[in-house]
Amino acid sequence: MSDSNEEKQGKVYARFVTEMKVRPDDIDLFQHVHSSRYMDYLLAARFDQMERCYKMPMSEYLERNMGWYQTSITMNFKSALLMGDEFFVETGILKFGICTIDLSYRIVRKADNRICVDGTATYALIDLKTQRAIRIPKDVIERHTI
Amino acid sequence: MSDSNEEKQGKVYARFVTEMKVRPDDIDLFQHVHSSRYMDYLLAARFDQMERCYKMPMSEYLERNMGWYQTSITMNFKSALLMGDEFFVETGILKFGICTIDLSYRIVRKADNRICVDGTATYALIDLKTQRAIRIPKDVIERHTI
Amino acid sequence: MSDSNEEKQGKVYARFVTEMKVRPDDIDLFQHVHSSRYMDYLLAARFDQMERCYKMPMSEYLERNMGWYQTSITMNFKSALLMGDEFFVETGILKFGICTIDLSYRIVRKADNRICVDGTATYALIDLKTQRAIRIPKDVIERHTI
Amino acid sequence: MSDSNEEKQGKVYARFVTEMKVRPDDIDLFQHVHSSRYMDYLLAARFDQMERCYKMPMSEYLERNMGWYQTSITMNFKSALLMGDEFFVETGILKFGICTIDLSYRIVRKADNRICVDGTATYALIDLKTQRAIRIPKDVIERHTI
Repeated sequence: MSDSNEEKQGKVYARFVTEMKVRPDDIDLFQHVHSSRYMDYLLAARFDQMERCYKMPMSEYLERNMGWYQTSITMNFKSALLMGDEFFVETGILKFGICTIDLSYRIVRKADNRICVDGTATYALIDLKTQRAIRIPKDVIERHTI
Repeated sequence: MSDSNEEKQGKVYARFVTEMKVRPDDIDLFQHVHSSRYMDYLLAARFDQMERCYKMPMSEYLERNMGWYQTSITMNFKSALLMGDEFFVETGILKFGICTIDLSYRIVRKADNRICVDGTATYALIDLKTQRAIRIPKDVIERHTI
Repeated sequence: MSDSNEEKQGKVYARFVTEMKVRPDDIDLFQHVHSSRYMDYLLAARFDQMERCYKMPMSEYLERNMGWYQTSITMNFKSALLMGDEFFVETGILKFGICTIDLSYRIVRKADNRICVDGTATYALIDLKTQRAIRIPKDVIERHTI
Repeated sequence: MSDSNEEKQGKVYARFVTEMKVRPDDIDLFQHVHSSRYMDYLLAARFDQMERCYKMPMSEYLERNMGWYQTSITMNFKSALLMGDEFFVETGILKFGICTIDLSYRIVRKADNRICVDGTATYALIDLKTQRAIRIPKDVIERHTI
């Protein structure tokens, strides 16, 4: 998989890909990756892509006293990742709200290119002191409009 | 909170409540319960309620070579649980499909009765040998129709 | 199990017990509690006992800009906890250093009173701003000398 | 770091190195990698090195109805890994027992080559059906004597 673009709601946002590998402690009693760990994989991809692709690492958000909180997620489990599997996490922005960002994601096994989990997630930008949602600053929107 | 009923799609299914407490290792870098741990709380409540409320513990499923796999979930994060919080996980069946069960759930903080997370989830009944979805046996439906 | 005393190095320190239950997400590919989760159980017992038994909850440490960091641990795995098991975590102080506290612990299954894991751990008291070990204040030692 | 040898008890066993990266869900309330996650890192390195270095992946053990259970571990926490850190896990065999293997390990931050955690661990070879320790087969010892 490689980074690509996707037209969505009249706007084209880039999609980015992070490569990862299943850790043994991710495996559950059914010998599959435990369902909640896919959410951790999405989080890891977000941190990687904030820094590597959007050039705004979490450390910069923290310095500016801001953070992204996940306000909702949908997850469709289609095929289980197994011990030792390598996989891609692809994410891309669907649209911006005043304080929020909607994205879609896919977790894809490297060996057979099968979608294991997909869905959408919404994140609100939070002022870490007040713990309240704030308007996304213009420069943040610009850096994500790629 | 106590167990109650809810009319839904012409059918009344019981709702059940499991009481739990946040563990220190559930807390993340933002001093909140880590988002993926709420899915683990739902799983723990499901195991408790399968045994205590539906009188069909996971061990009985395993003996009959069956298991429930989560095929989708939606999660709305409304208020974060914090270190030391006690909380309730309330779940109830919305409807049965041929091989699936839909339920809704709410995770509620005990101290102020606020909803922290809510959403819906779908589980498919799986034959553990073939790893394929199977028709839910009549006796299983009956034990859940309370 | 109930709280008790133990003579050690000429000094008697109380031992305390926290009761817990295995969560389904603690189970690993071998159907046992995953080895690293026992360390999380010890941590949970420490938080509980700091508050309930030593009357000095972690929140008080944080207000005083202090925290306990685990500097070493030994763990002997003797019998595995399984899905649904209830268990006790017993801890007690062995001795005080200038900046450190040594304790021993046992994780015991409720059903058959078998020791599942035991060992010792050392914690250093840290100034959270400097991240350096500090002399344990007299009042903290006094509250632990029970 | 690169793979090397070390003389120990008159016998030279190879030491191997696995490179990993901290995942955001490994970070705890103190903004450090959570203490129990270092044990998960060691486990991940073991799985990698069983396959890549000793040419005997866990899948081969499972086919032969065997597994390695950790029977004890010591961990010395010397410097905390932080968000985004890359690190090495170096392990090497210290000695063989009848049913057990002793190894030492070091977790080292890539950026400054500092030892973050070190210690020793013992694993017993188990017959997965009887769940009892068994004599390590000759071919397994040979493959590890490198």
